[in-house]
Amino acid sequence: MITKQTYINKNELNKERRMEFQTAKGVRDVPPEEKILKNKVVAVMTQQFELAGFAPLETPILERYETLAAKFAAGEASDALKEIFSLQDQGKRNLALRFDLTVPLSRYVAMNPTLKMPFKRYEIGRVFRDGPIKLGRYREFWQCDIDIVGSKSMVAEAEILFVVDAVFSALQLPVVVKVNNRKVLNGILEQAGIDQKEEAIISIDKLDKIGVAGVSAELKGRGYAPKQIDAVFALVQEKISLSDLKKKLKSKEGQEGIQELEELFSYLAARGIKSGRFDVSLARGLAYYTGTVFEVQLKNGEFTSSLAGGGRYDNMIGKFMGGGREVPAMGIAFGLEPIIDVLKMKAEAKMKTPAKVLVLPINTVCESLVIARDLREAGISTDVALLKGVTKNLQYAAALVIPYVLIVGEDELKQKKVLLRDMTSGMEQVLPLKEVIKKLT
Amino acid sequence: MITKQTYINKNELNKERRMEFQTAKGVRDVPPEEKILKNKVVAVMTQQFELAGFAPLETPILERYETLAAKFAAGEASDALKEIFSLQDQGKRNLALRFDLTVPLSRYVAMNPTLKMPFKRYEIGRVFRDGPIKLGRYREFWQCDIDIVGSKSMVAEAEILFVVDAVFSALQLPVVVKVNNRKVLNGILEQAGIDQKEEAIISIDKLDKIGVAGVSAELKGRGYAPKQIDAVFALVQEKISLSDLKKKLKSKEGQEGIQELEELFSYLAARGIKSGRFDVSLARGLAYYTGTVFEVQLKNGEFTSSLAGGGRYDNMIGKFMGGGREVPAMGIAFGLEPIIDVLKMKAEAKMKTPAKVLVLPINTVCESLVIARDLREAGISTDVALLKGVTKNLQYAAALVIPYVLIVGEDELKQKKVLLRDMTSGMEQVLPLKEVIKKLT
Repeated sequence: MITKQTYINKNELNKERRMEFQTAKGVRDVPPEEKILKNKVVAVMTQQFELAGFAPLETPILERYETLAAKFAAGEASDALKEIFSLQDQGKRNLALRFDLTVPLSRYVAMNPTLKMPFKRYEIGRVFRDGPIKLGRYREFWQCDIDIVGSKSMVAEAEILFVVDAVFSALQLPVVVKVNNRKVLNGILEQAGIDQKEEAIISIDKLDKIGVAGVSAELKGRGYAPKQIDAVFALVQEKISLSDLKKKLKSKEGQEGIQELEELFSYLAARGIKSGRFDVSLARGLAYYTGTVFEVQLKNGEFTSSLAGGGRYDNMIGKFMGGGREVPAMGIAFGLEPIIDVLKMKAEAKMKTPAKVLVLPINTVCESLVIARDLREAGISTDVALLKGVTKNLQYAAALVIPYVLIVGEDELKQKKVLLRDMTSGMEQVLPLKEVIKKLT
Repeated sequence: MITKQTYINKNELNKERRMEFQTAKGVRDVPPEEKILKNKVVAVMTQQFELAGFAPLETPILERYETLAAKFAAGEASDALKEIFSLQDQGKRNLALRFDLTVPLSRYVAMNPTLKMPFKRYEIGRVFRDGPIKLGRYREFWQCDIDIVGSKSMVAEAEILFVVDAVFSALQLPVVVKVNNRKVLNGILEQAGIDQKEEAIISIDKLDKIGVAGVSAELKGRGYAPKQIDAVFALVQEKISLSDLKKKLKSKEGQEGIQELEELFSYLAARGIKSGRFDVSLARGLAYYTGTVFEVQLKNGEFTSSLAGGGRYDNMIGKFMGGGREVPAMGIAFGLEPIIDVLKMKAEAKMKTPAKVLVLPINTVCESLVIARDLREAGISTDVALLKGVTKNLQYAAALVIPYVLIVGEDELKQKKVLLRDMTSGMEQVLPLKEVIKKLT
């Protein structure tokens, strides 16, 4: 007899047993119902990237530690260095897991001096950051990057925003692309007499989160006068138009930024793209941006995470390489996980398997295998029953939401027919295989 | 004036500069011309896996160290433990990079006790081994696995060999699939009075490399008599047929293995698949196989590496999970890199970009961007010129082997036409855009 005590103990035992099998902290499995969706998004991106003439590049996940650390010498905030996963190989070499796809791209460009420019590449792969865990943020996640290296033309900006439009249109996600230019921000800061521009931009980048009061307090803390701070916020206003700002901004660098934005918006207009919106308050934290910056957000705003973001970084690769070479670059990273999170909110039926039909032989294994081949050759994803008995296999099909079961019995086979069961309605029909194929394609 | 000395110094300086930018030892970049091919192979596999009803699963690259080490308690050779890349996170947790996709699958099955069986999944991803570097062997490489967990039916074996056939047919690679069964080998060893079967199988697995003499010497070294060794090689002969062996083998386990093979070959025959070949000398080193084992090799034999391999492992997942549960499984791993290596030998033109056409505006940027959109919407991969001047852009197209350049001049545009240049022949034609699209699709 099982007493309550032993019952509890057994439960605890099972719990313990399960505890042994966990994923590492901050990472997770992607089960079939989600991975099917993820693969679809990757396929859409790959298609759009290639249509726009970006070529695929694969860089390793393992990099020399020195290579990744070099990025920080090239201008990235240094506390991100702590988030690098580092390790050693058996030869005691210092290695690290890449934390983005831009550093491997820079290394690749540095290692291949004969590379034809402009170099347009895309890479879709995992990156790793040993950071704090938040909802929807993982230590192992996917980035989908396109970059154009070796061109200062604003057509590069336009081309990348066209891909943004194509990808989100294909995914049926309405988005807003906030666009700004670092030169405009620099001009505003110059006009306000603020000399530590990079620090100030990092403060302005927090406008969304801490508001005008918060940013003002930070600037005050850095020793700027109320008059200077007012001069900044006279121009850094979400709603200010490009033409308004053009009149009010006197700095030469600022006017250059405005001209670049005007050129970019003229290309967007020519292509009839309406998702782009000038937003002078968009700063983007990273220090290495030199011109255009932009960020993609969902239009209705229920989801505030950015779905993609990027900009122009004309100095980073050159600094990284050393030797005074200038290598202009423009790029974007799409965040695969935030995009998936948005798509998951749409209440579509979740597929647990690609299979459209389960072939269930009743003493007809050999014939059924041939039928499965014919279905697959017609492009129909087909599973073959592996359990014993009709009931168990029907339960399996129901659990995996396979829409049809094809029952292959000896009697029907003699008439060259099979029995097709629609799992949603329960309806059954005896049909020749040809008609089944027609129905399922 | 540059003296020879300063010239050499500069060269050394450049060399040093380049030396700073290396990939980590044992890993490499996959440049576009190779990654385009790799993506094609992955697309072929994904399509065939899904047609056969396998669902995608994504497991993390980072696993708890304990999870990976548990495999070795479950029967894997323990010196492979040294090849695990291990690391710690900021919280001092012991982590490791996965070295195959079977352990993460086992962990996933263990963590999801309500998973519907049979569970048919595929996973395509990178694995990591800190091992010695050989030609064509990397420390970071891709595996493409399909497994059927939870079924003992020989139809599972057949289904996996069907996928093997479909994948290599689609890749136009003629292959031989050597098939054996561990129970047959166990039966032969039992009949020869050899009790340490797993050790003996590891020796027999080297038959390809060290020959009969080498394997005999190893068995002799383990204390077996010449008579016993002769009894093994009387049956372990590459050319022996299944029916011959059936007559000569008396062991009950051996006969069970032969029956399983007969069932499997009957399914292959029903499907008209001729690539499968019984080979009693095929052992496969891993200790965890319990029944069917097989290995895929290129037919003409100029390339000896195996392109895929796998087998039945009915005890591993259960042992790994503990608690006495039996979880039968059958699986295969395709080696992506060896397959790419074979395909690279075929002297096909290497694509450096997916782009089919480069649109080159001459004072017509806005109109050209609209033309590029129209080409892309017609499914034609299209690049837009970013360099200044016609000559430089033609050189760019030539270097990237882009087959066509579309020159968009003001005069032609007035007649609603564009100039199409065939980069192979040098021929130029003035055509309406509609005809260009027709020609390029």
